[in-house]
Amino acid sequence: MAEKRNPINETDDEARALARRLIDEARTGALAVLHPDTGAPFVSRVAVGTDADGAPVTLISALAVHTRALRSDTRAALLLGEPGLKGDPLTHPRITLSVTAQFLDPADPDREALRARWLETHPKSQLYVDFPDFAFVRLQVSGAALNGGFGKAYELTPAELMP
Amino acid sequence: MAEKRNPINETDDEARALARRLIDEARTGALAVLHPDTGAPFVSRVAVGTDADGAPVTLISALAVHTRALRSDTRAALLLGEPGLKGDPLTHPRITLSVTAQFLDPADPDREALRARWLETHPKSQLYVDFPDFAFVRLQVSGAALNGGFGKAYELTPAELMP
Repeated sequence: MAEKRNPINETDDEARALARRLIDEARTGALAVLHPDTGAPFVSRVAVGTDADGAPVTLISALAVHTRALRSDTRAALLLGEPGLKGDPLTHPRITLSVTAQFLDPADPDREALRARWLETHPKSQLYVDFPDFAFVRLQVSGAALNGGFGKAYELTPAELMP
Repeated sequence: MAEKRNPINETDDEARALARRLIDEARTGALAVLHPDTGAPFVSRVAVGTDADGAPVTLISALAVHTRALRSDTRAALLLGEPGLKGDPLTHPRITLSVTAQFLDPADPDREALRARWLETHPKSQLYVDFPDFAFVRLQVSGAALNGGFGKAYELTPAELMP
């Protein structure tokens, strides 16, 4: 019997599939970082895709606070699962990924494949994807908190998030 | 002439009105906190309203990570302005508020008015608003980063966000 004060359910196939779907379908997310000037939490909207391994990826500008933040401290968290405009947003499934940022070097041999994959899901970024101040960042997941609505909380390991 | 590398525009009436509208119309937001166990960034979706002074307010459960986080370190950031399901989400206006959490004591004489105001905009929370593990938290704003779309970035002071 579950302990009364523990709101976390045991992970099952349905939870794993929902988590994977939220990552695969995300086009944007809320990225939380430590502000580079103050160390306080900061959060902003970023574009989100995946790499061939299924890890979340973003494309960010050096002009943005979140980019300066990740250059200074690579720890971050990513909230995926945007609510629609209808229905109760707090019953809409979402997932928080605990991540570490890995900036992709512009000369990285993997960049071309990642760029092509990104442009399939984010065609409008064609306009700036090759600007020198933009960089792809792979977000290495260390854990996840899935919330499928009230009473449907799960904690998932990176292995449970694999495609 | 603006410095080439500074992407922040001068705040004008239009930016102030947009910022205020994003706060007033928000029903949910992405709340970034410091994880109470690790100190790393964490982000989750919370319900959002305002108090009579226009400050953002949330209603959160003691069972949630964000609540434990704010009890341990009151610094947080709140992203408001959910994109719709259509159009380019990165052109949808949004605002990041840098905030400090102030938990409202259940016996606070201001709670009744705040509760009534909250239920007007969040009628479904009638089901749990008075549960003993739920608390109203006022988010005292210390600054704001407004992003009205590409090339429309502003930084606003608390005074500029006043209703």
